[in-house]
Amino acid sequence: MSSLDTAEPGSATTPPLTPEELGLATRNHGFLLEALRYSVTPVGLHYLLTHYDVPQVDMSTWALEIGGLVERPLRLTMDDLRSRPSVTRAVTMECAGNGRMNMSPRAISQPWGVEAVGNAEWTGVRLSSLLEEAGLRDEVVEVLFTGLDKGVENNVKQLYERSLTLDEAFREEVMLAYAVNGGPLPPQHGFPLRLLVPGWYGMTSVKWLASIEAIDTPYDGYQQSYAYRLRQEADEPGEALNRMRPRSLMIPPGVPDFMTRHRSVPPGPTTLEGRAWSGFAPIARVEVSTDGGETWADAELGPQPDRYAWVGWTAPWDAKPGEYELCVRATDADGNCQPLDAEADWNLGGYACNAVHRVTATVDPA
Amino acid sequence: MSSLDTAEPGSATTPPLTPEELGLATRNHGFLLEALRYSVTPVGLHYLLTHYDVPQVDMSTWALEIGGLVERPLRLTMDDLRSRPSVTRAVTMECAGNGRMNMSPRAISQPWGVEAVGNAEWTGVRLSSLLEEAGLRDEVVEVLFTGLDKGVENNVKQLYERSLTLDEAFREEVMLAYAVNGGPLPPQHGFPLRLLVPGWYGMTSVKWLASIEAIDTPYDGYQQSYAYRLRQEADEPGEALNRMRPRSLMIPPGVPDFMTRHRSVPPGPTTLEGRAWSGFAPIARVEVSTDGGETWADAELGPQPDRYAWVGWTAPWDAKPGEYELCVRATDADGNCQPLDAEADWNLGGYACNAVHRVTATVDPA
Repeated sequence: MSSLDTAEPGSATTPPLTPEELGLATRNHGFLLEALRYSVTPVGLHYLLTHYDVPQVDMSTWALEIGGLVERPLRLTMDDLRSRPSVTRAVTMECAGNGRMNMSPRAISQPWGVEAVGNAEWTGVRLSSLLEEAGLRDEVVEVLFTGLDKGVENNVKQLYERSLTLDEAFREEVMLAYAVNGGPLPPQHGFPLRLLVPGWYGMTSVKWLASIEAIDTPYDGYQQSYAYRLRQEADEPGEALNRMRPRSLMIPPGVPDFMTRHRSVPPGPTTLEGRAWSGFAPIARVEVSTDGGETWADAELGPQPDRYAWVGWTAPWDAKPGEYELCVRATDADGNCQPLDAEADWNLGGYACNAVHRVTATVDPA
Repeated sequence: MSSLDTAEPGSATTPPLTPEELGLATRNHGFLLEALRYSVTPVGLHYLLTHYDVPQVDMSTWALEIGGLVERPLRLTMDDLRSRPSVTRAVTMECAGNGRMNMSPRAISQPWGVEAVGNAEWTGVRLSSLLEEAGLRDEVVEVLFTGLDKGVENNVKQLYERSLTLDEAFREEVMLAYAVNGGPLPPQHGFPLRLLVPGWYGMTSVKWLASIEAIDTPYDGYQQSYAYRLRQEADEPGEALNRMRPRSLMIPPGVPDFMTRHRSVPPGPTTLEGRAWSGFAPIARVEVSTDGGETWADAELGPQPDRYAWVGWTAPWDAKPGEYELCVRATDADGNCQPLDAEADWNLGGYACNAVHRVTATVDPA
């Protein structure tokens, strides 16, 4: 497969931006940073990445097929799924490519800044309960999830597919979600059913789920073995992405310039605020800098709504007239922290770049 | 005001794309063309352009103020508005900058391809009924709408504001909308209340409405007298934008390449389909070309759901293996049609570019 003109992991290059990147940026939706004010992201503000097209699903024929190496193959309609015990969890989801534009040279793919995130309340059925109902045979090592979305990547025509090991598939938080924020899934978030793997980057939470297959060898399809891997060179196998690295984002204070998004802030005492998350462990610390990362002060953490939901933070700031580079970084309970810049974590696909969030602001004269 | 580094109408230039354009493209949301299958665009798929930030609105204090040169100033809470007779209309809304990226040289602003559109069912109160209730004085010539969203454009700090002449303000279709697609407005579409001016480009449908003021001289603020005008040169006053020019869009057939969005289509008889609209007059004709615009065939029009909602169209296509440039164009009952390319309508701000929609596709061998 060529590493040019392709999406994942793509070629690393430098500006200028390409028309293809602009097309992807127009089509895929970034989160609006001011929406960090909502613990639960309203529908339409959650980030959205659609590899191919949002498929049309005919509910008169749709059913989830659970098959492969199982004792009792299942065919479940939406009524079947909704009649089972449900779980609801607030879950922060982030694209594995979030932060890609901060890497240099950068991979040519969806050109995310830091906005590929959202936190929604998902409702569905525990995956483990359905796998137990179907009964996995002893030789099963993974379960494969196939979506209804079809397309071409790197000259490979495919349905979107990802697998999970049994350890992951049986985690109690993993669900098949049919509702978000109290309503049915909208088409763009996977209607009628999607996988949801809390703590992981979004690529594994397969949308428009059609089937689950129990398999006896690790899945090696495109989205697992080629895309979504950390590599330094195109010819190495790389390391699979899974859990989200810690990140904190800030509500940009004051008001923006339409074009540059540079902020104008009135002088005086104010509160910086935002949210932080990590797929590895709970957030233990959030720090804020108002001098571009030279000095840091601890922010105050709010309550954790759910283990895999983001946590709010606040930090006082006595804004005096001048120019500022405001920064925020998070550290999780495992000691994972955000790097000051993207160099340390550079990789060919531009994945998992969690360098500190920086916002430039001018505090106006009194 | 400088015409460099600014949004509206901005300077005309050529590629490369700027980081500011990418930032805007990430933040503002394009419509997904496959969602043309839905007559009513689901929330989260409608285009979204936010000049500044989505403001936070405290409903314990929010009320709509109607004042200025009126006999009876009004202060209306959401309960007051919801207790009045309501109207619901399907309305197609398009950004005035839709198509900007097809112009060359292009204005530096939100870099829309053709995706800045959506068609929603809006519910609210007729504007005319509230203006009659307040009683406009004889000297009133316009009504001014002020939103809660604040920011800086071209060095001008401002609240987002637009005015309407009395002829427009009293059109029966014009409403103050508090609901969309049967639910409350989401924050990003103007919660709790927005102006909705069917037939016009979206810039006039002020979101996060705070006040309406009756005035005796035409409003000359930034968004009316400087932005959103058709100009050839920066120093001319230009012509104000208002009604949407005709446009038709096609559901891209087959399946996409992730990066390029180029389509792969299976061979055989298929149906091309999409939707068309015009703010000037009902759509009279939609034509499809499969040879890049050399020859055209009439599409069949579906029913018109509402005067200012888009109308569906279909056209048969016997797809034989080969390379295609599929095109579609609409003509309205006033005879307004779409140009083959963007040259004819070039303007400094990159507005109202309604050149025909083109989709490249490869029909695979049988």
